[in-house]
Formats: sequence, structure tokens, C-alpha cells
Amino acid sequence: MATLNENFLKLQSNYLFADIAKRVKAFKAQNPDAKVISLGIGDVTQPICDASLAAMHKAVDDLAQKQSFRGYGPEQGYDFLIEAIIKNDYEPRGVQLKTTEVFVSDGAKSDTGNIGDIFGTDNKIAVTDPVYPVYIDTNAMAGRTGINVGGLWTNIVYLPCTEENNFLPKLPHVPVDIVYLCYPNNPSGTVMKKTELKKWVDYAIANQVIIMYDAAYEAFIRDEEVAHSIYEIEGAKKVAIEFRSYSKTAGFTGVRCGYTVVPEELTVIAENGERVQLNKLWNRRQCTKFNGASYISQRGAEAIYTPEGKAQTRATIDYYLANAMYLKTELQKMGYTVYGGDNAPYLWVKTPNGMKSWDFFDLLLNKAHLVGTPGVGFGPSGEGYIRFTAFGEKENYIEAVSRLQQIEL
Amino acid sequence: MATLNENFLKLQSNYLFADIAKRVKAFKAQNPDAKVISLGIGDVTQPICDASLAAMHKAVDDLAQKQSFRGYGPEQGYDFLIEAIIKNDYEPRGVQLKTTEVFVSDGAKSDTGNIGDIFGTDNKIAVTDPVYPVYIDTNAMAGRTGINVGGLWTNIVYLPCTEENNFLPKLPHVPVDIVYLCYPNNPSGTVMKKTELKKWVDYAIANQVIIMYDAAYEAFIRDEEVAHSIYEIEGAKKVAIEFRSYSKTAGFTGVRCGYTVVPEELTVIAENGERVQLNKLWNRRQCTKFNGASYISQRGAEAIYTPEGKAQTRATIDYYLANAMYLKTELQKMGYTVYGGDNAPYLWVKTPNGMKSWDFFDLLLNKAHLVGTPGVGFGPSGEGYIRFTAFGEKENYIEAVSRLQQIEL
Repeated sequence: MATLNENFLKLQSNYLFADIAKRVKAFKAQNPDAKVISLGIGDVTQPICDASLAAMHKAVDDLAQKQSFRGYGPEQGYDFLIEAIIKNDYEPRGVQLKTTEVFVSDGAKSDTGNIGDIFGTDNKIAVTDPVYPVYIDTNAMAGRTGINVGGLWTNIVYLPCTEENNFLPKLPHVPVDIVYLCYPNNPSGTVMKKTELKKWVDYAIANQVIIMYDAAYEAFIRDEEVAHSIYEIEGAKKVAIEFRSYSKTAGFTGVRCGYTVVPEELTVIAENGERVQLNKLWNRRQCTKFNGASYISQRGAEAIYTPEGKAQTRATIDYYLANAMYLKTELQKMGYTVYGGDNAPYLWVKTPNGMKSWDFFDLLLNKAHLVGTPGVGFGPSGEGYIRFTAFGEKENYIEAVSRLQQIEL
Repeated sequence: MATLNENFLKLQSNYLFADIAKRVKAFKAQNPDAKVISLGIGDVTQPICDASLAAMHKAVDDLAQKQSFRGYGPEQGYDFLIEAIIKNDYEPRGVQLKTTEVFVSDGAKSDTGNIGDIFGTDNKIAVTDPVYPVYIDTNAMAGRTGINVGGLWTNIVYLPCTEENNFLPKLPHVPVDIVYLCYPNNPSGTVMKKTELKKWVDYAIANQVIIMYDAAYEAFIRDEEVAHSIYEIEGAKKVAIEFRSYSKTAGFTGVRCGYTVVPEELTVIAENGERVQLNKLWNRRQCTKFNGASYISQRGAEAIYTPEGKAQTRATIDYYLANAMYLKTELQKMGYTVYGGDNAPYLWVKTPNGMKSWDFFDLLLNKAHLVGTPGVGFGPSGEGYIRFTAFGEKENYIEAVSRLQQIEL
């Protein structure tokens, strides 16, 4: 008789977005004429850039002729894309990578989820709080998180990111094996400067800790003091895996393409005492359980690195950043305390008068017909915050600000 | 200090295709003028059908406008595709499925690999011999296979498929929990008739065994007595997960799209004694570690189900089947014993005079400049066979036959 992976049964359903949808639905039922504006949307809204569209049309045409037809591609991704990645995302920042160190995939969610396949189940995991839930849930599925008590896992080390520490987590005070860092951060929109990131790399080297570095929002960085890649920090290749995504960089949430860097220098000591390259294990994992990202998506991604593609994707990101800056500035004028939004598509807004996240959510929905994401949904340190995103339409932010100005707090 | 998944270190590299490439390379170096023809190619060569190409162009256009833009899709796939699947692949064969039972993905290799996530590591696995290596390797990664002794795993039950049993595996003589069946079969090209498949479903029901049914080559079936879906067999929904792929059906090896059916009736008893739907676990797995297949690929797949798409993909499969039939007939005329090829793109050719697979491989390469895949590379019961595929160009098969006719055996 077959048995289950019992760890799945320990997972709690994440009710955050379902709860939001339920409350919005109930409100709309009672207020059918209200025009509800979502500031909680985590998905892009602007079209794909022309350079990528043209490249994807051409890729479809390639599949129409025997001579240019592409079947199975390399599981690791096509060299045309890997070489563009290295040349454009890394070399200008002084980072040299081999083509064998870059693994193209269908997106960062798959990679941050699947990476656990190559690690032992006995690793102790640390995450920031608040946090993107995939890091926790995928480790829970693998049996690394202990049991869930009141929403927190007994075997996970949570690193609070709060106003008091300027949303910069302290180094773990207990031994851990793997740390997940996401910068620019989802959900708080805050960043870690190079000097701060260096502390983490040095800590990881000294303590033989692996850093899972999620740089999905890298394209939103405008501050020169913030690293786009963790490999800009000396020694990071020895300790870090970096995840990148075209989802927010180029509107590829529906196209599906991203990549993961596993440097050859990154090794772990096996039980037999030998140092093993994680690169070899990840390569084996991908060759066995994955058949490469869509050729069409990879051609679309390659085009992002052309001069036109760079200018066009930059313009879209600037549009989102302008939304963030406008909303942040107006909220601050109204007296709100707002974090993030300078180098990220997320604003992390402190609720007024110490309100709970969900109470402020309800107030915004009822008084201004606005929807945000309650910060507490991302972890206990998110209590007292609400997350707004910058991925919407500019006119909606203008309307939202006008409504926010009417609220008496 | 982080630890590895030590199971990865037990995996042996699969040298089959690397070995083939090495021998072909050496031959070409010594015989630069020889025109080597590959009959071992496991990838399609014919272009994507016009209906899918048009749909993919339209999908790219959708991404060019705000009004039609698609961002994150459902992790389970778009309803437009799921509904087309149910209506076309299942209803005409008397199988009713709910939309929540079909999970669209980036391909069957991912799904057959990732499905192990939802099962305990203590399940006993049975596979046919010869076999598609992904079933074994992914279970080895999860720690289910014991240790590898001379290429075989101590904790896997191998079910020989030989001339003696007409390539139909016997029911396991020891208790097992999960059985992988692939029909039409890769590598042997043989099929299982409904009467035979019913024995497996009945066995699985009686013994609470899960069947992983890989139907990637379903579109090649021409025999009415062969089931296209395991769910055509009564009771199969209680015991089987079915994997489907557009790779060989519609030339999507580079486009990446497939799907997996996990019926709600399929349950496993958890440690706490409760029956748990595997559907819920797979849904949770996909929602946590996957972000849906590319919108463009899904639109391309949807178009396969239009009248034009059906006719066009059928024509391409007929082309491949004609290659198979031509090669089979000619080989038989030459006195070879040949299996498969009637309802599958693979021919399983018995080597002449009891030659070993690799010896016959070398003979074909040196005497006729032809490349096949040594059967022993798929498992010990493949010794004495070579696999030819039908995915090449017709003119190459004509030339290959002419060369084969010159070989003195």
C-alpha cells in the first residue's frame, strides 16, 4: 500500500489571498456600484516590450520550418541566452561566470522550490520575517521545518525585519545551515546595501552556511550602493545560489522564464568527507526532472538584452517605480510612515494609530474601496503593516490617493 | 554546515547517449566523408502544425496589449486548455473528468519526476525492464531505491519485458506500492491491449497499488483494442495517475506543454488512518513549486484540438508511423525480428545471430554508417536489441534500408 509524504499534511493552507478575495467579494456584493481599486496586485499589468514580442514571433516562425525547427533544447538553457545573461547581467558588474554555472528555467518559483531536492532533510533553515511563503512551504514539504505551532514552524529560524532594525535581519543567533534572503525584498520593498550584504557573505563563509539569494526584483534597483547580484560581494560564489526572474523585469509572469546561478566554487562536504559541487547536483536534478524552458520564451528573454529591449524594459520598470514614488510621496504627505518603493515595486506602509493589519485592510476597503495586502499575512513581524504594490495603472494610483486623502484617521 | 541529499551521490551517470556520441564522434574523425544517419534520434523533426503556430502568434500578440495581456495564469493551467483536453482526449472515449482533475504543465518529464514529491520515501517501486530511466533516477534521488549493484537498484522491482512474455510484464510477485507503466512503450514500441491493461488495474485495486501511467505516445495508437487512456479501464480512477505530453503528439519538444490527470477518486490512507486525495496533494505541490506553463505554449496546445489542428497533427504522426512501417517491413524482409512500430514511433529490433547490443551498434556504425540505440542501455532485458526511432526524415530511412541491405550478417 502506497504511503504519502506526510509532511504535506502538516502544511497549513495559506488563506491570505483567499481571505482577501472573500472580503472583497462580500464588500462588492453589498456595494455593487463601488469601483474597487486593488493596490495589492502582485502581477504585472503592462505589455511585453516590442523587442521580446518580435523575438517570440520569430521563434514561432522558426518552428514552422524544418530547417530552423528546434526540438528538445539543453535542459540548462540555450547558450544564446546564457551568454547574453553573463555578458549583460554579470560582466558589467565585475562578475565572471562560466556558461555551465547558469541554469535557465521556467521561473524563480520553480527553482526556489526545487532547489531543496539537492539538500539533506536535516538542514536548519532561516528565513526573514515577513517572508515570501514559498521558501517555508517548500522546506515544510521536504520535512525540514518541524511542526507548525500557531502558524510558526518549530524548526525554522525566523529573522525579524522591523522598523527597529531598519528591516535588516540580524545574523542568526543559533547555528543554521541555509538562509533565504530576498533583496529587493518582497514584501517590504526594502534593500540591503553592499556593506550589509557583505556581513552576510562573510558570516556564511565563516559558518559554512548556504545563502539562497532571491534577486527577482533586481531590475528595480536604482541605488548605486545596492548590489544587483550577491556575487558582487567578494567570496559569495563560495556560499550563494542566486535566483533571477524575468517575471517582473520584463513582464514574463505568463511567458515563464528565469534562471539560477550555481557557481562551481560552491561546495558542500558529503558524508564521505569529500567536497561536492552543488553545481553538479543541480545539473543532475535539472537533467532528470526538467526538459528546458520553452524555446519561444528563451528567445523572448534573449531580446531583453538588445539595446531596444533594455530601453523598453527599463521604461516599463520606470513606470512602475514612478507609481511607487508617487504613492509613497502622497502617503507621506498625509502623515503615513512608508518604507520601500525606492528600489522595489513594493511599499510597506505602517498602519495609522497602531491598527492591526487586517483592521486597516477593512478600513481601506470600506472607506476608500481600496485593497492592500495585510502585512501580517507574510509573517508575525508584518503585523501593523500593509503592502501596496506599484504594478497597477497610473490613473488608479491618482484615484487611490484622492480617496486616501478623504479618510479621517 | 549544510548537508547534501546523499541519494544524489548514489546515482550513476547515465552514459548511454554520451557513449553513443563518443563512438559516433570517433567514427566520424576516422571517416570524415561518411554520411552518418541517425536512427536513434528521440526527438521530433517535423515542424509544428499551422493551427498551433497561428495560435502561438496570436498569443504573442495578446501580450502586446494591456487589454489582452496575460500575467500569472492558474498554476493548474488555463480552463480553455483543460476543457479542450477533457472534451477531446477523454469524453469521446467514455471518460468523464472534472476540470480540477487535469493539471497542465511544462511537460511529462517534469511531472513524472516531480510526482514523487507527494509520496513517502518508503514506497516500493516497480518498473518494467527495459525502461525510460527517469522513473528510476527520480526515485533514486528521493531515496526509494536502495543501493546500486552493477547497475540495478536493490530496492526496485524490475519487471522483465522480453520476447518470451511478448513484452508484457508479469504482475509483481512481491508486494510493491507504486508501478510505472509506459504504453505505447518507450523503448520497445510495444503496446498493451485493454484486456491486458485491465489485469493491471484489477491488480492495483486489489493490492492498493498506485499505477503511474505514462501515455506520452498515445497519439500513435491505431489499434482499436489498445486504450488511449488508462481511465478507459473500469476502476482505474481509483488507482492511476496518467501523464500526457504534447512533445510527440504535436512536436512540442521545444515548446514545452503536457498534462497530468490525478482523479479525485484516487486516495491513499495517511498515517492517521484518513483517506487523503492525491489530487489535493498534487495541487498543493504545483501551487507551491510551479507557476503554470507558458501562456503561449498553452494556446498552442489548445489549437491542436481544433479540426485543423487535429488533421495536421494526425498527418505528422502518420508520416512518422509510415517511417516506422517502412523500416519494419524492410527489416523483416531482410530476416530481422522486429517488434513495435505499429502503434508507436519505436522499433525494437532483435540483433542478428545473438549479438550483444553494443556489438551490433558498432557493426551498424562501421558497416552502414547508421546509428541506433543499444537496447541494453535501457536495462538488462534490453540486451540483444537495438532501438530505432521513426522521428527522422523519410529519405533517410530509404537510404538506411539500402545500406542495411548491403550488410552481410
